[in-house]
Amino acid sequence: MHAAVIHAAHDVRFESVPDPVLSTGGDAIVRVVAACVCGSDLWPYRGVTETAAPKRIGHEFVGVVEEIGPDVRTVSVGDFVIAPFYDCDMTCVNCRNGFSTSCLDGGWWGAEDKRGAFADGGQGERVRVPHADGSLVATPGQPDAALVPHLLTLADVMGTGHHAAVSAGVGPGSTVVVVGDGAVGLCAVLASKRLGAERIVAMSRHADRQALARRFGATDIVAERGDEGVERIRAMFDGIGADHVLECVGTKESMDQALRSARPGGQVGFVGVPNGGPELPMRQMFSTNVGVRGGVAPVRNYIDELLPEVLSGAIEPGLVFDLELPLSEVGEAYAAMDERRAIKVLLRP
Amino acid sequence: MHAAVIHAAHDVRFESVPDPVLSTGGDAIVRVVAACVCGSDLWPYRGVTETAAPKRIGHEFVGVVEEIGPDVRTVSVGDFVIAPFYDCDMTCVNCRNGFSTSCLDGGWWGAEDKRGAFADGGQGERVRVPHADGSLVATPGQPDAALVPHLLTLADVMGTGHHAAVSAGVGPGSTVVVVGDGAVGLCAVLASKRLGAERIVAMSRHADRQALARRFGATDIVAERGDEGVERIRAMFDGIGADHVLECVGTKESMDQALRSARPGGQVGFVGVPNGGPELPMRQMFSTNVGVRGGVAPVRNYIDELLPEVLSGAIEPGLVFDLELPLSEVGEAYAAMDERRAIKVLLRP
Repeated sequence: MHAAVIHAAHDVRFESVPDPVLSTGGDAIVRVVAACVCGSDLWPYRGVTETAAPKRIGHEFVGVVEEIGPDVRTVSVGDFVIAPFYDCDMTCVNCRNGFSTSCLDGGWWGAEDKRGAFADGGQGERVRVPHADGSLVATPGQPDAALVPHLLTLADVMGTGHHAAVSAGVGPGSTVVVVGDGAVGLCAVLASKRLGAERIVAMSRHADRQALARRFGATDIVAERGDEGVERIRAMFDGIGADHVLECVGTKESMDQALRSARPGGQVGFVGVPNGGPELPMRQMFSTNVGVRGGVAPVRNYIDELLPEVLSGAIEPGLVFDLELPLSEVGEAYAAMDERRAIKVLLRP
Repeated sequence: MHAAVIHAAHDVRFESVPDPVLSTGGDAIVRVVAACVCGSDLWPYRGVTETAAPKRIGHEFVGVVEEIGPDVRTVSVGDFVIAPFYDCDMTCVNCRNGFSTSCLDGGWWGAEDKRGAFADGGQGERVRVPHADGSLVATPGQPDAALVPHLLTLADVMGTGHHAAVSAGVGPGSTVVVVGDGAVGLCAVLASKRLGAERIVAMSRHADRQALARRFGATDIVAERGDEGVERIRAMFDGIGADHVLECVGTKESMDQALRSARPGGQVGFVGVPNGGPELPMRQMFSTNVGVRGGVAPVRNYIDELLPEVLSGAIEPGLVFDLELPLSEVGEAYAAMDERRAIKVLLRP
């Protein structure tokens, strides 16, 4: 089969790789129907994190089950399935606690699982999925083609935006600021609206992203950043800041923006991968009582809650895809996102 | 009158100072009935924070109102009152949000208030209290002498221990680890018990503090620290750690201990003053989804909830006082706490 392989910064190729083979009894092979490129894929693409040797890449996909191992019980050949951006068994204590990203037997796409068998990257024609019963969620019947982009967001960005909102404690009547207007930030706006937030400020400088943020439920747009952005936000909320701030970027600057946009006793929910390793200023948190909670989003745990609303059309998170390319043009998909020509690129084999 | 003045590290003197004078209309003068020394007072005493010039010190006291300004409405001359470890108006947006330590018009004892009038330190014979209506809470009638130590803890340590538990999200059925066996840590045990925690581990190496922790509701004691302490804690809780961890020390080591004792998705509530400025490891928080929330405790907001239980004897937080001295021997009180001869020292004029 063919799959995306990153060789070095700015060098992602679609090339021939070994076909996946069932190996653990509880695994499945999924034929990918749609995949996409994540903002976090851009870190190795940009060389911010090093690629020492060629490596399979991609962690968001939906598809159809082609083969299952003898121990698989909850999905069948022919099912349309959503996979989270990691694999998990959904039976260990961490999965049961709602944090399947800390699954005691879990792993990541494009790497060996805990039994030493390879789990393919998500940007490929097929993927071997470890413990398929835990990792995969089947839709009731085959979805319409138009639903596929929305379903695909449950693999990562919609669940991650939801996690930012949940981690920040967003609920009915909340005031919310979203830092970051990428696909995750936009989904965080949608998640906040869905959870009942009353006022949602999207911090964005791009007209197309501002428009989508408004469609997703943003009540206000703030284009300023840094000190000016903080001043604007505080002026909007009693001079002190918002109850909840969702950090969806992952830089030192965006976290600083988030911490200073929250009112005393407010809460920051963060899902931006902290690349470059900013540390949190503890004395500032101490003096303001602003809490920080979040991290790698347990999106598998959220699929049960979000899937019915995607199926009914109540939420349309797939609107974050503004470019579609054949999977074979995955290199161009990375370039388009790197150069900010696209918010998020959908790939179809 | 006489009051404690810190001149330099290890040099706290009880000396003659000017009598307080009403000056803002909304203030009161309180005759101190009992005061005490805080763990955070030891930072300047030990020279960890510098004392550039002689300075009034002390921020925990209860007493009787001697004089009130013409605008005071809620307390009267003769009332027995509890003061929090700061002053606040209880009318601004932050006070109404429950975070009176961020009062827009608030201040600290032993310093000028926002109108430029001096608010005395708490370790003295009398204190001028800015906006007395916000800062002071009067008890119903004059309390028995035996109740005074318990009431005094509402000025800081009991409310601060409670804040650690609230910030960590402790509730019915919770599993809790308390890092730190000082007065605040012990009160955090009591607060967790009161909030319904099912299992409470006190980390302590001192027999007297272990005994008090058990009396306050600890179900387990762990004497180990560092890697060994973390291993013991994880072994007690499914191999992954506790739901809630209360950090009541304020060092880099204690925060590290706290973060690693929480299970994935758990929550650290922190109230230890972060002296020495440790920063939080954001990537570790990201990968584990362990949240951190807390800070300078809004104890004034908690007095309404905690006072009835102190008055009824349902909780006895004043057991943290294990030494009582005349206020004039305040220097010896600091020495006793510095040398760990006492958990917490009560001072009476």
